[in-house]
Amino acid sequence: MKKSLALLAALAALTALPAAAQFQKPEDAIKYRQGAFTIMGNHMARIGAMAQGRTPFDAKVAADNAAIVLTVSRLPFGAFGEGTDKGMPHRAKAEIWKDNAKFKAAAEKMIGEVTKLEAAAKAGNLDGMRSAFGAVGASCKACHDDFRADRYSAN
Amino acid sequence: MKKSLALLAALAALTALPAAAQFQKPEDAIKYRQGAFTIMGNHMARIGAMAQGRTPFDAKVAADNAAIVLTVSRLPFGAFGEGTDKGMPHRAKAEIWKDNAKFKAAAEKMIGEVTKLEAAAKAGNLDGMRSAFGAVGASCKACHDDFRADRYSAN
Repeated sequence: MKKSLALLAALAALTALPAAAQFQKPEDAIKYRQGAFTIMGNHMARIGAMAQGRTPFDAKVAADNAAIVLTVSRLPFGAFGEGTDKGMPHRAKAEIWKDNAKFKAAAEKMIGEVTKLEAAAKAGNLDGMRSAFGAVGASCKACHDDFRADRYSAN
Repeated sequence: MKKSLALLAALAALTALPAAAQFQKPEDAIKYRQGAFTIMGNHMARIGAMAQGRTPFDAKVAADNAAIVLTVSRLPFGAFGEGTDKGMPHRAKAEIWKDNAKFKAAAEKMIGEVTKLEAAAKAGNLDGMRSAFGAVGASCKACHDDFRADRYSAN
């Protein structure tokens, strides 16, 4: 039940703003999605520092950071439309457009794991948060392995 | 009362994540704040299209976009620490660090107006949203006039 709720939330998140996903030019979409990933990575790192004991665990700070990651995790996937594989240097692999269903599934998986991380952080349970953080990290890595290039494109 | 509540929310937002505002190098802070402004601008534009009648008014879409703007509006101001005036090209004027109190006040003003925009969008009232959108836009412009350069810095 818990799992299907998370999946439902993930699907709802992915479909929340389809018609409004507007970008004037490919560069705008690339900047937007890169900005979203930058913000997600930063706040994941702040949670990670607590999960790994490098900074003291503060449930309020963890929950605030997880809420930001959750909000922003829903954003980048509306910015990979057709034609956004060029416009400025980026690290999106051609596989994103070649196997879009697999890319979307990887995005859904990540959003589902972030949904659980946010719930665990809100509950103020360090062990639960640590475990959920690991699952989010694994979902990030899996998607990066398949869909993120090591180097920036030429344009 | 309404005004002081919005101000309170703005102040709380600004001080929500002070200790956790960590960036490994100035470039990380610059990328982060630029990403946040890019996302804010994009979702403001989506609301603006409705406010200005270029796209049909959809209260749910407006509220979703306003909630994103509100969450992200709180983020960039933790990324203007000392030393983040160099690292990569950016448009932050030296005045940000010379008159930091004024910069912070402009940020607070903007977050307060976004808080009102989010409330108006949630209430589903197009006239109210239109008016609040104008106030947010004015607060963006005022801060850009004083603190955003026309051109990117050399580094």
